[in-house]
Parts: sequence; C-alpha cells; structure tokens
Amino acid sequence: MAEIVKLSIIGFGLMGGSIAKALRGSGKYSVTAYDADAAVLKKAEEESLADVYTPDALRAVKDADIVAVCLYPRAAVDFILWNMEAFKPGAVVTDICGVKRLVCDEILPHLRKDVAFVPAHPMAGREKKGFAMSDGGLFKGCNYLIAADEKAPGVEAVKKLALDLGAGRVVFTDPEKHDAYIAYTSQLPHAISCAYVQCMGGRSLIDHAAGSLKDVSRVADINAVMWSELFTENADNLSAECERLAGELLTLGKQIANRDAKALEGYMRTSAEAMEKRNE
Amino acid sequence: MAEIVKLSIIGFGLMGGSIAKALRGSGKYSVTAYDADAAVLKKAEEESLADVYTPDALRAVKDADIVAVCLYPRAAVDFILWNMEAFKPGAVVTDICGVKRLVCDEILPHLRKDVAFVPAHPMAGREKKGFAMSDGGLFKGCNYLIAADEKAPGVEAVKKLALDLGAGRVVFTDPEKHDAYIAYTSQLPHAISCAYVQCMGGRSLIDHAAGSLKDVSRVADINAVMWSELFTENADNLSAECERLAGELLTLGKQIANRDAKALEGYMRTSAEAMEKRNE
Repeated sequence: MAEIVKLSIIGFGLMGGSIAKALRGSGKYSVTAYDADAAVLKKAEEESLADVYTPDALRAVKDADIVAVCLYPRAAVDFILWNMEAFKPGAVVTDICGVKRLVCDEILPHLRKDVAFVPAHPMAGREKKGFAMSDGGLFKGCNYLIAADEKAPGVEAVKKLALDLGAGRVVFTDPEKHDAYIAYTSQLPHAISCAYVQCMGGRSLIDHAAGSLKDVSRVADINAVMWSELFTENADNLSAECERLAGELLTLGKQIANRDAKALEGYMRTSAEAMEKRNE
Repeated sequence: MAEIVKLSIIGFGLMGGSIAKALRGSGKYSVTAYDADAAVLKKAEEESLADVYTPDALRAVKDADIVAVCLYPRAAVDFILWNMEAFKPGAVVTDICGVKRLVCDEILPHLRKDVAFVPAHPMAGREKKGFAMSDGGLFKGCNYLIAADEKAPGVEAVKKLALDLGAGRVVFTDPEKHDAYIAYTSQLPHAISCAYVQCMGGRSLIDHAAGSLKDVSRVADINAVMWSELFTENADNLSAECERLAGELLTLGKQIANRDAKALEGYMRTSAEAMEKRNE
C-alpha cells in the first residue's frame, strides 16, 4: 500500500481551499492547513478539511513531504525564502502562481540542495477570491503547467498531486515559455475584459445584453490586488500583447469606418480559420 | 378561442428555422415556410416544421397575418420592398436584423399605409449559421428588442410572437438608440473576439488554454458574410467603439509596461465596479 503523503497547504484562499477540498477523502494525503488568518483556519476546521490546522509556519512545514504554497506570487516567494531552513530534507516545495519567471528567479538561487522546488501553475480559477469560493471541482480537467523538466527532482510527486486534484493534462514547460504563453492565453483576456467594461461609460446594459457581452465581460469582476501583481510581473510580455491587440482593433476599426465589407469578410475568415487551427 | 395566426417565415436559416422549431406544437400559428433553397425547404418539411413549404415569395406572403423576414439586413430590405404590393391589407411585417437604422430608413418611406412594419432584433444567436444549427430553444430568455413605440401598429402581434418564442424580455427602443447600444453590447464583443484570435500568430494553445481564453474567443468562429454586413451598416457607432477600446488597451498596456501596480489596481477596481453597476 502506498504511503500517506504529508501535504502542507500554505494559504487557505481560493486555491489552497480548493486543493484541500479536492483531496478530501482520497486517503492518500495527510493535510496540514496553514493560514495567517485564524478565522480562515477555523472555517477550514469546521469543514474538516485537514488533519492539522496551524498559524505557525515552522510547524506547518517542518514534517511535510510536499509544501504547496498557495499565496500571491511575491508572498509565495517570501514564504519560501523565509522558511528555507525549515523544510525537512527531501521535501518538495511547489507553488500555484500565474507567473513563473519571478518565482524561479527569486527562489532557485537560494534553494537548499536537499529540497526540490517544482514551479507549477494550475490553469483554473474563479472571478471571486478567498476560501469561501473554494471548490473541490476547481481543477477538474484543467491544464496543470509545470515549469520544469519532467525528470527534475520532485516533479513526479507534483504530477501525482495534479492528477489527484483532477487535472486533465499535466504540461511541462519552462518559465520563459510559460510567461510568454500565459500573457496571451490568460492575462490578455483579463486585460480585455477590464478594458471592455471601462468603455461602458455608465450605460445600463440590462436591455441590450447578449451572450457575447457576458462572455467578454465575465472576468472583469476581477481580484485587483492579485491580477495587478501578475500583470506587473509579466510586464514585458503582456504590454506587448496589449499593444498588438490595440493595433488589431484600430485596423478593424478603420475597415469598419471605411465600410470595407470585402476587407472585413477577409479579416473574419482568417479569424475563424485561426480558431480552427488553435490546438494544432 | 383565439384565432390561428397565419405566420410566414421568410428564410429558413438559423433564425427562421429556430422560430419554426420554437413554435412547433404551440397550436397558435399556421406556418408557411419560404426559402430560395429547395434543399432547405425539403429538410424543413422532413421535420414537419410548417404547414406550407414554398419557394414562391408571392404565394408565401399573400395570405399571411405576420411575415417574419429572417434574412441578412440588405436581403431583408430587398425582400420587403420587392414584395410590398403582395402583402395582404392589415399584414404585420417584421424582421430579425441586428441593425435597425438601415432597415427603418429603407423600408419606412415605402411602407404601404395598410401594412405595419415592426423592426425587431431578438438578441440570440449561435456561432454557426444555417438551418442545420437552428434550435427551438434559441430565444429562451433572450432580450427581444423592438425598435418602435409600444403602441405602434402591429407591435402587439410581434410582442406576442416574441413571448411565444420564449423571449425573456421585450424591450422597446428606437433605431438610433438600438444601433448605438448594440455596437457596444454585441458588435464590439464580436470585433474583440476576431482581433484577439488574430493575435494568436500561429501559436498552439492546447497546452495553455484556460476559461478566460475560451470565453473571449468563442464568437471568433464567425459568420463572416453576415457580420461584415452588420459591421458596415453600423460603421459610425462601431468604429468609435473599436477606437475607444484600443485606447483603453494602450492605457492599460502603458500601466503594465511601467509596472505601475497602484494604477493597475485602481483600473481593475473601477472595472469590477462597472460590472456591478452594469444593470442599473
């Protein structure tokens, strides 16, 4: 029989809470819940989401086989660096941050030789933040990105964890590639959504809303603190994507202003084709 | 008992087919199906969607109480003008076009005194076109816009039709206001989606896709012929919306490039607030 893995979840917000809920009843993990907020720990305990609940970081990490740090990027970096001496030999430390160059650049130079760091990014989320929004089905079918080599220390354990959480695919990448892709596939849609609702200009939409509006505006109900951190930590890639899209909209706007139906048809056809080829 | 309404559906594409399917079995309408394409009429007949099937426009309209013209905007205008002398006295002619200034400007000056025209726009659709995509649930809960006064001739009959189709709200507006709103609530999201996927630049997305990408790109799989017509017929409003959004994206891109987390947080907070107030 497989040994029970001692898993410490650092931060019981949307992501940490969802990890605990997803693993509940799996029988594979013994979970320690850490949060700086006693009220959050109490709620987690009311739902019996862990075996140990503690606001003491040292106690939370010292015996853990896997330490899953579920904090915003800078806070995750700080937590890992501050507790570097506390991890047990052979421990696997992983994170869930949406930017990977920052965490790797800050952590890898200071990583103990007998501790593994596995930079990870489960591509799953909700508009609303916090433990109250956490959901055991959050990771169901998601892409779980690992910005490391498949054979690197600790990766096997994090891959197992990802599949136990319900991830659909575990994808191996590197921090540079990750941040470049994510700028387009995740951050730009959030930027679009925010920019789109800024254009509302006080108009009431209830009488004129359709499905396309709902889709494009959904993520504008955004966690401002976390996303402004994610955006600034991927500034080079994302600012370029925003400029590129603005250029496309100006091109399209000119075709429209000129009532150039032929050009518009061509533009839309290449858009529909790009959609068809997007997974090739 | 209420009299059976003689309804002619002109054009059995996505919209016309969905109207027929939504009314099937209601017992309130006797339906005549018109399409220029014999193959489409045959398919409609195989599904017993109408009482009469004809490729003869004169025959289709001459006895109808309501003529629902389900064609692209220019074709709808042409059909109505060409058949103006064929409508029976007291007939109500309506359409489903996504632009309302064009159809009103072209039709109203030539409207017979004993025929009512009710310009309408059910805000419902699918990415894919044609009868094969039609769906009796397409209008369920939708906003059904009528660009006329609530007391104008024929409006009561079209309002009843909208509710029989399953519309959630019947909204009265005018052509100017309709086109201005729709530029933002429906056309701009389609423009965004097309522009967004143009930025893909051959990258394969399967490993890095998340929910936000799916939402923002959904409608890029677009009916190029119809939407280029809708865009050019609302050129003034929509080109202004595209420029405005491009400006927002450039502002946002600069805040990101400057790694100005405070500005970004403020921007996102006002976005989230706009979302909360969008239906007020």
